[in-house]
Amino acid sequence: MNTKKNIVIAGGGLVGSLLAVYFAERGHRVRLFERRPDARKTNIYAGRSINLALSDRGWKALRGVGLEEKVRQIALPMYHRGLHQPDGSYVRQPYGQPGQAIYSVSRGGLNILLLNAADAYENVELFFNHKCVDVDFETNEVKFLDEAGNEVVVKADYIFGADGAFSAIRGEMMKTDRFDYQQQYISHGYKELTIPAGEGGSFLLENNALHIWPRHEFMLIALPNIDGSFTVTLFLPFEGNNSFSALDSVKKAREFFRQTFPDALELMPDFDQQWQQNPVSSLCIIRCYPWVRNHTALIGDAAHAIVPFYGQGMNCGFEDVDVLFQLLDHTADWPAALEQYQKLRKPDGDAIAELALRNFIEMRDLTADPKFLLQKKIEARIQQKYPELWTPLYSMVTFSHMRYSEALALGKVHDQIMADIMSRPDIESNWDSPEVEAAIIAKLREIQPVL
Amino acid sequence: MNTKKNIVIAGGGLVGSLLAVYFAERGHRVRLFERRPDARKTNIYAGRSINLALSDRGWKALRGVGLEEKVRQIALPMYHRGLHQPDGSYVRQPYGQPGQAIYSVSRGGLNILLLNAADAYENVELFFNHKCVDVDFETNEVKFLDEAGNEVVVKADYIFGADGAFSAIRGEMMKTDRFDYQQQYISHGYKELTIPAGEGGSFLLENNALHIWPRHEFMLIALPNIDGSFTVTLFLPFEGNNSFSALDSVKKAREFFRQTFPDALELMPDFDQQWQQNPVSSLCIIRCYPWVRNHTALIGDAAHAIVPFYGQGMNCGFEDVDVLFQLLDHTADWPAALEQYQKLRKPDGDAIAELALRNFIEMRDLTADPKFLLQKKIEARIQQKYPELWTPLYSMVTFSHMRYSEALALGKVHDQIMADIMSRPDIESNWDSPEVEAAIIAKLREIQPVL
Repeated sequence: MNTKKNIVIAGGGLVGSLLAVYFAERGHRVRLFERRPDARKTNIYAGRSINLALSDRGWKALRGVGLEEKVRQIALPMYHRGLHQPDGSYVRQPYGQPGQAIYSVSRGGLNILLLNAADAYENVELFFNHKCVDVDFETNEVKFLDEAGNEVVVKADYIFGADGAFSAIRGEMMKTDRFDYQQQYISHGYKELTIPAGEGGSFLLENNALHIWPRHEFMLIALPNIDGSFTVTLFLPFEGNNSFSALDSVKKAREFFRQTFPDALELMPDFDQQWQQNPVSSLCIIRCYPWVRNHTALIGDAAHAIVPFYGQGMNCGFEDVDVLFQLLDHTADWPAALEQYQKLRKPDGDAIAELALRNFIEMRDLTADPKFLLQKKIEARIQQKYPELWTPLYSMVTFSHMRYSEALALGKVHDQIMADIMSRPDIESNWDSPEVEAAIIAKLREIQPVL
Repeated sequence: MNTKKNIVIAGGGLVGSLLAVYFAERGHRVRLFERRPDARKTNIYAGRSINLALSDRGWKALRGVGLEEKVRQIALPMYHRGLHQPDGSYVRQPYGQPGQAIYSVSRGGLNILLLNAADAYENVELFFNHKCVDVDFETNEVKFLDEAGNEVVVKADYIFGADGAFSAIRGEMMKTDRFDYQQQYISHGYKELTIPAGEGGSFLLENNALHIWPRHEFMLIALPNIDGSFTVTLFLPFEGNNSFSALDSVKKAREFFRQTFPDALELMPDFDQQWQQNPVSSLCIIRCYPWVRNHTALIGDAAHAIVPFYGQGMNCGFEDVDVLFQLLDHTADWPAALEQYQKLRKPDGDAIAELALRNFIEMRDLTADPKFLLQKKIEARIQQKYPELWTPLYSMVTFSHMRYSEALALGKVHDQIMADIMSRPDIESNWDSPEVEAAIIAKLREIQPVL
């Protein structure tokens, strides 16, 4: 019996190309179809990438097909947030324990690496400029239109929709009965800018930090690139006082930056040109279910697109691949494995969507609230003294492989404990007292058995 | 200046055809395109209509174009719920004050009446078997495919998508940026059956009631038709113990009816044939925003499809038309009026969606909880003694023109008041005491000023 399957993947972005490698590594025949041109020949991400922050979940999935070391070579560790405060001061907040970091990678660079990795297998064929226009969930046939407009129909044993937030495969699923779907845009959009490298490829900002200019209703961030430049992203409401609508001329935009992000503006001599050239993009959350129809499954953003504020979009998509193969590798019953995959991952997709949305508020307001900062100080103290009792939510999400849904649930329990502590009338003066510490520890011990 | 507009309506169902009459009455040129065949020539609703319950909001919109009397002739008043209890007893629950009723009409009959009304205008053209395939929101052009597959492109001043829960116009809007959308299926589906008329067109059940067989997790309902028959609808989960999946043979279905709805089964001699012929349909809630893109607007189910359990789907769609013309009739600035229309109606669409979902639980569980019945008894008593202080939620929704969103908000306040009352330890014994009455009245007086 031939156990090798005929796999069709729609989407050659990060998740689609990693998925191709996973299937290829196991000897299956893989045909991958991408709507856009080959990312190795054309910069398909210009002006709207949002830089990526690889963390533990992503690394684990890369390690699973031996790609970790290759990716390390194009990744820059960011050990802390670098906060550019409104008063001009600069504050470092470590992301985790010493040595723990999230890693800045360019979407384009990583995509090229993964496409090359897939392309190196003899049992993989890559097709670009192929637009998915139809799926038959009964016969497992997918129809694409190639660049010349010719119909290409391929038959598969299994079809994977890794074709992103605006997935065509999911669009076909939507036409089937009882398919739940939601697309929800947030009030903010984003525009990308670049801080060029300094002389000799030097970094003009600290290079091992994720820079944030938190300004309550909006924020600017910057992530380092290996060529010494920084990819800068402005997150701003579409409408209102400080908004993309209000900044309807370069002059207004420059004045806004001069007042709000003067240190960043100084590092972008071609700000005017960039502002005019680069588009404003919107941010959408996608939720749907089921993810599987017969032998067709959604994966990555196609199943659960989220906002980028926890740096988990790609990591979650890569973890989908990891979880999928933990299931497929242990059974010949693929339909049952796909059913388990969607049941397992749906609550985790929902959880990271919620976490990402919440983190936007935390990122923007980091400097705002002295009470919030005091709470973080108390938490850090507890964590240091009782690491077995307290892992911060950020670490559970970023530096662990705990299910997102469990991290979220535990984070909510922690929030409640801290809300009680912070409501003590004398907390400002006795935050580091044995009494406060004992109260927290008692509660943490109480919840231990249920975890 | 010619103030007459060139209107294109997609969808010739209930809302589309009423909308056509409203525009035609004001002298505008109307072209209405319907995907299906002409309802006057083909029964396009066979087996999946869910009978309609016209109530005050619907009547008002019909009255606005002089159609009330015509529709009265095909409508049957239902003054009360007729509850067929599990113990075989039959209980009447009035819907409102004496004389207040909701009216059973057949979807097909009403649609034919409205299409004829629209067709009677010289400035109306009706096109059937025309499928909408594209909208250009900049040029206001809509592309249809006719029965022969020919493209028909029409240009309009304003375009209305009245094309139902699976609206093609909305489908095109979904391709534009920042369009929020949700489709949510509930766990229950439905199957329609018919209780035929008795001898000489007589009714085999009480004809001025909406019959309900509430059975907690599922229910059967029956609405009278003017020919003496009843349209019967079974609402049942798709999966589980008592479900459409479980009833996978006529024999099982008949046995289920024999045990659960014996009096209804007796009235359907051709039950077996009906069960096999009629499809199981799903129930979907649609939420989206915006409803307006440039000169194109969504209306009715295309903007806000809801579950049928409050009998408000059509009434809400008709009220959309009423509200739209309250705005259009008082301004030459139609874009501003459309903007107001969507801002006004969106919260009301959301509110009736929530109310309809909640009412499903109430309908199924009507007989279940003695506490619930006691609460209804207390409420009825308060309403009778203090009608100026208490209007039941059902009456606000069904027999008033109060905004759905306001009815929902006030209903929640009432719920809280009653939850407090019902939590009194001695409520069973002193529910009609002066003390309980005084407590309720005090709270109702308290909230008066905020309304």
